[in-house]
Amino acid sequence: MQALVLEETKRLTLRDIDPHETLGPRDVRIKIHTVGICGSDVHYYQHGKIGPFVVKAPMILGHEAAGTLVEVGRDVKHLKVGDRVCMEPGIPDPNSKASRLGMYNLDPAVRFWATPPVHGILRPTAVHPADFTFKLPDNVSFAEGAMVEPLAVGMHAATKAQVKPGDVAVVVGAGPIGMVTTLAALAAGCARVYIADVQQPKLDLAASLVPGAVVPVNVKSQNLGQVLRDATDGWGADIVFEASGNERAAAGVFDPLAPGGRVVFIGMPGAPVPIDIVAAQVKEARIETIFRYAHVYPRALGLMGSGKINLKPLITNRFAFSESVKAFDFASNMPADAVKAQIEMPV
Amino acid sequence: MQALVLEETKRLTLRDIDPHETLGPRDVRIKIHTVGICGSDVHYYQHGKIGPFVVKAPMILGHEAAGTLVEVGRDVKHLKVGDRVCMEPGIPDPNSKASRLGMYNLDPAVRFWATPPVHGILRPTAVHPADFTFKLPDNVSFAEGAMVEPLAVGMHAATKAQVKPGDVAVVVGAGPIGMVTTLAALAAGCARVYIADVQQPKLDLAASLVPGAVVPVNVKSQNLGQVLRDATDGWGADIVFEASGNERAAAGVFDPLAPGGRVVFIGMPGAPVPIDIVAAQVKEARIETIFRYAHVYPRALGLMGSGKINLKPLITNRFAFSESVKAFDFASNMPADAVKAQIEMPV
Amino acid sequence: MQALVLEETKRLTLRDIDPHETLGPRDVRIKIHTVGICGSDVHYYQHGKIGPFVVKAPMILGHEAAGTLVEVGRDVKHLKVGDRVCMEPGIPDPNSKASRLGMYNLDPAVRFWATPPVHGILRPTAVHPADFTFKLPDNVSFAEGAMVEPLAVGMHAATKAQVKPGDVAVVVGAGPIGMVTTLAALAAGCARVYIADVQQPKLDLAASLVPGAVVPVNVKSQNLGQVLRDATDGWGADIVFEASGNERAAAGVFDPLAPGGRVVFIGMPGAPVPIDIVAAQVKEARIETIFRYAHVYPRALGLMGSGKINLKPLITNRFAFSESVKAFDFASNMPADAVKAQIEMPV
Amino acid sequence: MQALVLEETKRLTLRDIDPHETLGPRDVRIKIHTVGICGSDVHYYQHGKIGPFVVKAPMILGHEAAGTLVEVGRDVKHLKVGDRVCMEPGIPDPNSKASRLGMYNLDPAVRFWATPPVHGILRPTAVHPADFTFKLPDNVSFAEGAMVEPLAVGMHAATKAQVKPGDVAVVVGAGPIGMVTTLAALAAGCARVYIADVQQPKLDLAASLVPGAVVPVNVKSQNLGQVLRDATDGWGADIVFEASGNERAAAGVFDPLAPGGRVVFIGMPGAPVPIDIVAAQVKEARIETIFRYAHVYPRALGLMGSGKINLKPLITNRFAFSESVKAFDFASNMPADAVKAQIEMPV
Repeated sequence: MQALVLEETKRLTLRDIDPHETLGPRDVRIKIHTVGICGSDVHYYQHGKIGPFVVKAPMILGHEAAGTLVEVGRDVKHLKVGDRVCMEPGIPDPNSKASRLGMYNLDPAVRFWATPPVHGILRPTAVHPADFTFKLPDNVSFAEGAMVEPLAVGMHAATKAQVKPGDVAVVVGAGPIGMVTTLAALAAGCARVYIADVQQPKLDLAASLVPGAVVPVNVKSQNLGQVLRDATDGWGADIVFEASGNERAAAGVFDPLAPGGRVVFIGMPGAPVPIDIVAAQVKEARIETIFRYAHVYPRALGLMGSGKINLKPLITNRFAFSESVKAFDFASNMPADAVKAQIEMPV
Repeated sequence: MQALVLEETKRLTLRDIDPHETLGPRDVRIKIHTVGICGSDVHYYQHGKIGPFVVKAPMILGHEAAGTLVEVGRDVKHLKVGDRVCMEPGIPDPNSKASRLGMYNLDPAVRFWATPPVHGILRPTAVHPADFTFKLPDNVSFAEGAMVEPLAVGMHAATKAQVKPGDVAVVVGAGPIGMVTTLAALAAGCARVYIADVQQPKLDLAASLVPGAVVPVNVKSQNLGQVLRDATDGWGADIVFEASGNERAAAGVFDPLAPGGRVVFIGMPGAPVPIDIVAAQVKEARIETIFRYAHVYPRALGLMGSGKINLKPLITNRFAFSESVKAFDFASNMPADAVKAQIEMPV
Repeated sequence: MQALVLEETKRLTLRDIDPHETLGPRDVRIKIHTVGICGSDVHYYQHGKIGPFVVKAPMILGHEAAGTLVEVGRDVKHLKVGDRVCMEPGIPDPNSKASRLGMYNLDPAVRFWATPPVHGILRPTAVHPADFTFKLPDNVSFAEGAMVEPLAVGMHAATKAQVKPGDVAVVVGAGPIGMVTTLAALAAGCARVYIADVQQPKLDLAASLVPGAVVPVNVKSQNLGQVLRDATDGWGADIVFEASGNERAAAGVFDPLAPGGRVVFIGMPGAPVPIDIVAAQVKEARIETIFRYAHVYPRALGLMGSGKINLKPLITNRFAFSESVKAFDFASNMPADAVKAQIEMPV
Repeated sequence: MQALVLEETKRLTLRDIDPHETLGPRDVRIKIHTVGICGSDVHYYQHGKIGPFVVKAPMILGHEAAGTLVEVGRDVKHLKVGDRVCMEPGIPDPNSKASRLGMYNLDPAVRFWATPPVHGILRPTAVHPADFTFKLPDNVSFAEGAMVEPLAVGMHAATKAQVKPGDVAVVVGAGPIGMVTTLAALAAGCARVYIADVQQPKLDLAASLVPGAVVPVNVKSQNLGQVLRDATDGWGADIVFEASGNERAAAGVFDPLAPGGRVVFIGMPGAPVPIDIVAAQVKEARIETIFRYAHVYPRALGLMGSGKINLKPLITNRFAFSESVKAFDFASNMPADAVKAQIEMPV
């Protein structure tokens, strides 16, 4: 089968490769339809590693995918051939302590697509455990199905934040993760999300996602803390989602926060962040940190199926599989008004 | 001032009455614009009492109200004359143990409009503490503002349920409280609400509130537990809101429930309900019970202001103040397609 | 191997039987040392069934056990031959939805010792998954190790109750489960436990468990609600644990409860309980229900190892394995001052 | 009345002063018996300010106090003359938003003893709101009663940590706050507390507080993370309480922590702490921050009264009121084996 292979840093090829997969009794085989390009895919392409994960051998890229079932294992009950599905890219050991406690995302043994040495999903077919494969509602397209992976990050953040209906939230950063976090926070019960960035085109797109409920704040010219105080009789935001990964932004999360508020660190800063503990203490801030997601896919699909989350405006650029290298070059240098580029596999 | 006075059981008059109110430094005076008729108002009208609360002297009815500020006390900072507002009808002792713990709705000393011996609000003006008076967003009408009181009950239920984004919920009962609970549950993060009743017109109205997200279940002909199992691969609903107050319905809440699910008892059955504790235990059901609401008004108004909750379809019947007695007779015998009747005060 | 076999209702024999066990790579083999007799064992002995679980073929009894490892599977890392251990008697499917969510006790596929058709543990050796086998601290005896199973029920109840340090609790029922719940509630942070029963010897034993922190209430002569109100300036108990399974007692849990309090239903009443929903609502009671336990064994052993829970006073009667039938006859008709009977296996 | 007055930085006098107090209907007047010296008292003595709080006029010091009621206001129901009591030193506005939400400690309007410009309590008598005055159990001495204030900080931390019974905790720092946090964490359900410091005498005293349940870790020679991994099969501590306020220690809290663990920042570092967000994220650490305490006094007294918390070993040094200046000089330069110095008022 022909796949998009990262041969080494900065060298991608479309070529035949055999991932040596066999179908177990609880597995399914998926014909891949659409694959989104994630910042981490681009990072491996450009730098050959992320933290401790180093590409040492040719590796297929891609982990945001949707497709159609072409084969199901004999013990699979809830799925059948022909089902349109999306897949969770990380597979834990079900018997690890973290998995048994319900936190399988924290299992160090997780095998995650396109994280070395595990192959990704930019290829015609893949075998996957049925328990991590989810049927798409009829009104959810493959392109939207391939967006569930990034949405799951925002959903997990919103779940950890324990949103109470009517909360006011801030999302710091209007990149793809900031966008899906905004949608997730609103779906999770926030009345309003103030989204902060320095790029106006991203803010304009964010504000158009749910008119009346998303308020753009350009922090080039506006003070985020002041905006929130003005909007809330001086009280502040119930929740601040940090989705920029920017160290200075991450250090500033307590300013717009209300007493008793919650902060969720989603972005992963490259260096330690100078946190003013006392500024957090005088508000008794609770700080949650998240790592990927767990148990979120069916919830995300439920909200998409009932029309409460609409991801279509975030899919701004689409490429044919034959143009995959071009797609990665585009994604390596995204214009300010692009959010998500996807690759469509051949029929 | 002329008010709607319940003189005794089954006898209402429009007549002059003086509630002897003075404006304290933290109070406001409101010119009333719209007042909704609640089931409890009707119950006092028909029966003269609810549980231990007995009407022993003429009492003004009404507690769901919105209006305009005509005077503000000298220490009031966040409101001004001319503000359009709605009011929380129950005023606790701020120094009671329950109030200090943040549960002011459980303070036995609460004075609540139109609960004997406290006068209600079907009158031209009223004095009220500013802390329990809330500014309406510009896009929220007086009629909607007068709906915040019943909505607050549903919001409080949804808050207690600790909805996780993407939950599937059941609402038992499609009366006014079932309707607002449905809206609150969806706003709070539920992907879908299955609403159960035996009156098809109510179910049709409920299904039209948020198309695609509300599923009507007529329990005359459908088995609620089976509907939920079919819809969830046999798992069940994450949350069941009991909003009917019907004893048989209340006894059946565990059937459609998922393992680890939550039940919220909103309706107030008139007699003990035979609860199958073991049926709850095998699912480790958590059961929440609610009494009115606390800290909910600003949250409800936030969700209404940002367009996430639309109460307009629930306001089905409006009457002039001069027709108040007629309005109460109508409300005492509501047709199946009516949800909420309101009275508009003279300008 | 010789085991205690329930041949049919009311007929126990000590005889040879082969449970056909093989040791998998993640399993251990345990030489059994001590086995406690649980009310459910006695119930199968006397009645041949519990709810839907019917003894249709000879079945070994017993599920509260401790012993020594004599063999470990090749993938077992955290245990070794010679380790003194106790075992969780219920084994779920690790891939079920409930297990993945961390609620493995709610998995309908759980295989539980001495629940038909699964053999129990009154036999010389048994094979068990290492993940459900726990090392005893050096200062915890086999007899205490065999008490972890009932303690786990009380621990799970105390965990679900979300005890806040300094809470005042009520435990209804001073049987074995009431006793372990009292110990668990105190270890979990309660300042004081009021334990209610009608048998004075049980109350005396309970009061002696943690002098100064356990207050016995004989509900033959004392009104439980009044006792709690008198002790708390009228406020009530933060938590009520229902451990009697008695329907009348279960219906009365809201009387001694404080506003915002929690009830945990541990006992399993044989018939529906007439619950006064409104009495719960005016206090906004939260009601938790539990089914066995999950993730509790290591926590229980931690508290026993550090001296915070002492189960020794609860082990009131011990029998040799050869006297097993006599032990079961004793347990079928326990005197009021007996709590737990145990059987010691031959060395 | 003669009081201990901080005239200006580094100058204390015992002299007559009139705090101009009148007894309101909900107030009590207390004859002070014992007052503890807190680090903040010493800091005002030595430096004349803490953060934004600057001593600009002579101020009575002291805020940890117990005494006897000599007068009660006419609306006070739950206290009477002669009651032995301790007092919460911070009084909020009961009508502030924070207070109404149950978080009165976060009300910016709080008036707190010995925080400029509010006088402290090293004086013969004081008037105080009855709602913030708490009766001592009979078996709790005045000296212990004066220790409730620091204990309340540890109790609040343990409450925010949502301890589950059997948790393993780390307390970083064995000063007075580390000591009370250790006691609170154990009372709140922890099986074991690993307490870390570099001063062996403090560690020795900590270990003696609850033998078998407190494990001292001298981080001069031991690696805290390694100690915890060794003790927990590599899993880590469920909770880390940071009670040192040391920036380097605060930055290291994620190393000994388990996946899904909680950190509570109690100490108040003088400068921003470089937090490794990613190290927190891979464990999905939840970080709580606390500011003083709320609703804790009755809970602390309940645990002291039932014998679950014993503060006596922490009261290491006592001085007569006439020796107050000497006491403050001692407290300004505490030996390693001293924890708390207290001053006894004249009878």
